[in-house]
Amino acid sequence: MKAGVVGGGVIGAGWTARFLLNGWDVSVFDPNPNMETTVLRTLKNARRCLPSLYDKTLPVEGKLYISNSVSEAVENAVWIQESVPERLDLKKTVFSDIQNFALRTAIIASSTSGFKPSQLQEGAQFPDQILVCHPFNPVYLLPLVEIVKSDISSSAVVASAVDILEQIGMKPLLLRKEIDGHIADRLIEALWREALWLIHDDVATTEEVDDAMKFAMGIRYALMGIFEHYRLAGGEDGIRHALEQFGPCLHWPWTKLVDVPDLTHSFIEKIAQQSDIQSKDLTIQDLERSRDDTIVGIIRAMKKTSRGAGATVKNHEEKLKLKTSSSSRLIQTVERQVPSSWIDYNGHMNEARYLETFSQATDAFMELIGVDADYLVEKNGSYFTVETHIRHLDEVNEGEIIAVETQVLAGEGKRMHLFHFLKGTDGRLVATGEHMLIHVSLKTRASSLPEPEVLEKLSGYLNLQVTCKHPEGAGKVVYNSL
Amino acid sequence: MKAGVVGGGVIGAGWTARFLLNGWDVSVFDPNPNMETTVLRTLKNARRCLPSLYDKTLPVEGKLYISNSVSEAVENAVWIQESVPERLDLKKTVFSDIQNFALRTAIIASSTSGFKPSQLQEGAQFPDQILVCHPFNPVYLLPLVEIVKSDISSSAVVASAVDILEQIGMKPLLLRKEIDGHIADRLIEALWREALWLIHDDVATTEEVDDAMKFAMGIRYALMGIFEHYRLAGGEDGIRHALEQFGPCLHWPWTKLVDVPDLTHSFIEKIAQQSDIQSKDLTIQDLERSRDDTIVGIIRAMKKTSRGAGATVKNHEEKLKLKTSSSSRLIQTVERQVPSSWIDYNGHMNEARYLETFSQATDAFMELIGVDADYLVEKNGSYFTVETHIRHLDEVNEGEIIAVETQVLAGEGKRMHLFHFLKGTDGRLVATGEHMLIHVSLKTRASSLPEPEVLEKLSGYLNLQVTCKHPEGAGKVVYNSL
Repeated sequence: MKAGVVGGGVIGAGWTARFLLNGWDVSVFDPNPNMETTVLRTLKNARRCLPSLYDKTLPVEGKLYISNSVSEAVENAVWIQESVPERLDLKKTVFSDIQNFALRTAIIASSTSGFKPSQLQEGAQFPDQILVCHPFNPVYLLPLVEIVKSDISSSAVVASAVDILEQIGMKPLLLRKEIDGHIADRLIEALWREALWLIHDDVATTEEVDDAMKFAMGIRYALMGIFEHYRLAGGEDGIRHALEQFGPCLHWPWTKLVDVPDLTHSFIEKIAQQSDIQSKDLTIQDLERSRDDTIVGIIRAMKKTSRGAGATVKNHEEKLKLKTSSSSRLIQTVERQVPSSWIDYNGHMNEARYLETFSQATDAFMELIGVDADYLVEKNGSYFTVETHIRHLDEVNEGEIIAVETQVLAGEGKRMHLFHFLKGTDGRLVATGEHMLIHVSLKTRASSLPEPEVLEKLSGYLNLQVTCKHPEGAGKVVYNSL
Repeated sequence: MKAGVVGGGVIGAGWTARFLLNGWDVSVFDPNPNMETTVLRTLKNARRCLPSLYDKTLPVEGKLYISNSVSEAVENAVWIQESVPERLDLKKTVFSDIQNFALRTAIIASSTSGFKPSQLQEGAQFPDQILVCHPFNPVYLLPLVEIVKSDISSSAVVASAVDILEQIGMKPLLLRKEIDGHIADRLIEALWREALWLIHDDVATTEEVDDAMKFAMGIRYALMGIFEHYRLAGGEDGIRHALEQFGPCLHWPWTKLVDVPDLTHSFIEKIAQQSDIQSKDLTIQDLERSRDDTIVGIIRAMKKTSRGAGATVKNHEEKLKLKTSSSSRLIQTVERQVPSSWIDYNGHMNEARYLETFSQATDAFMELIGVDADYLVEKNGSYFTVETHIRHLDEVNEGEIIAVETQVLAGEGKRMHLFHFLKGTDGRLVATGEHMLIHVSLKTRASSLPEPEVLEKLSGYLNLQVTCKHPEGAGKVVYNSL
């Protein structure tokens, strides 16, 4: 699958990285000679962060081509993304150029934040092929894409766009109507105008306005948006009650939005100076890195509760395949990338993450023998770890693809004895985990026999691995093993 | 320290919980007979979530008193928080009542989201004592408080308010000027008006507006607010460049904010019906629980990168004291509460969190012998764990206060052999962790001798513990220990 990206600024480079890391080949064109630098820098950021959102590996990265022309970039592309500067005449020229070389079946999407699709389609050779797919920076991390169609857009193109955007882990939001600025930028613009007044009138500095957002509403907006919050504010009385309460203040003179402050030179200077103070000596690269690490953390946190962008990643991850086959008779129970948040002050994967990984491996093996979510609920049974022995054999670095292969050492009665081999990107053995587990009743919290079908599956794996040699390091005494 | 809370709705109850969990006694009054229910339910939510933000224990919870009158609530209180309905005449009556019984030195703070302090002070007995301290729901989790003073506010009262709010883990934002709606509500109101138009004109449903916020800007706002984002958008060209680019669209007709939609009965019904669909069959309690868990996750994620509310919690945590004394000669190296995110599908603390806790204990012990952040940088040395043996002896539940006591089994040359006892709330032994560590050079990544002063401190602890008995379970073979 090939994507053609026309316009290689921050947004085009973000699209390039998002497609590449989801296994697409990408051909990118921009007349700006700095384009390649921007694309490679963005790709580096994306490689560091996007895989960190997932507990499975993403597809093998696609191939990047730096093109010399629009025709080269869009030729045979299934998806064509335009991200050139926001000038309607320029965009129309680019679309005309694209449609001279593009597949008739390709999706041609514009990243425009302001123009309506009907404006972009006007005078085009094949207007039905053109859509707005408006993303948000950083495109490789933030899932939202606003899809905007006009009356003459092809519904097949729209449906296919939704499908492809979901495949690359995004959250397509299909608009009901085309309007200037779509939805998100309407909201951003309202906020922006009010924020400008607060600075203009010396009510607050840029840092104070940012603080007012960051320490309360920002957190709420990441997880519930605007209306769900008011629903909760209404409490048991409901959102109708909340709305009735809010009615009067709509007529209070709380906002200055009837008017717009002019961005004069001196006003721009005022904002810029405050912003310099606010960000102290952080470079743009520092800010980007910290922003990306934090976005990863926020989205991973939301994965646990299936809220907002966390739900998007979770759904995407469920569709990613975990390789369970293995060259040996051992069972591959984990394959994942080491996220930056797993690295500690010693510059390597923190020791607790070894057990987290082994714990995931044990969970995966339990599912294989039928001790899954249904079993827990229906049979009220599970395995609890009673003893763990970890040998750390080598360091693991940020970004490594790690895998666990599992050997069953024993499994009869209430006991299950597992041995996990943790391997690094190059297949070297980095740690072993030996775990004794006991089957328990989740009702009495006491040990109990597993269901017969579990024991049967367990002995199936034991038989499969009967000729595997007993692992080196299994059952060793802690103080003797050095 | 006593706080008096007048008005026990959602906001008053949130304040009550925030003060109580930070060790203050709180006396709360509200004529509404449902008040006690609201306070207890809020307190239950807060107990489940606030301690989860911290990796140290909060102070011992204060005492809650349900008062029968304003005088009882405010008597001898150092902090008095008013959170009655938003009617100026009512608030003034309440302030008059409060000042009849309050200490002259008390801080009297109003939770008002709309009124200016000068309006509240008008006609008061001691106007200089009255401030606005405007919090955000849920008050027990979100750190922001807008402090608004008037020209006649006492600067001592303001300084003391900032100090106390920081002590209870909040982020006070002191406004430069009093204006209607302070800062945050000005921004919220601008967004709200624009969102109402989008629903009114059928451009989007409540769910779609929320999605437009949640999947992109919400995440950004939680971590960088409004202006820092534009700074980044400007990239290497800087915020001045970004602002110049944004200039023209301020004059485009992107927002409808010149006008306000009337919240008629039928418009309210439209919003409410869309909201019902959006939240499906989630009850308010479901929403609250999910919201709180997610806020905890987001803030904990931001702690790692010291951004936004994460930095607030991190700073607060640094001021919390870790008890390191112990009744035995063992060293207490960890004391913390088990956050809800540590609980797994088996309904108890996940096995990987045992090692995370032991790893924190090892870090704390390393600091005691001088292997701290400075040592890592200046001496390029650290200890790496090479082997770990964990025995799980009992389950650990959500919310338990766990502690680790550490015994040094050996420490000479490059080796350090530690034994951690993990204890539950009631002092029962829930797990042991035995760890063999090797000192390494962070330059060569090979084993090396520690600095002499480290070995000296290490043998100091060995001598201190020389009569401690060898722990049961130390050095046992994995498969023999069952």
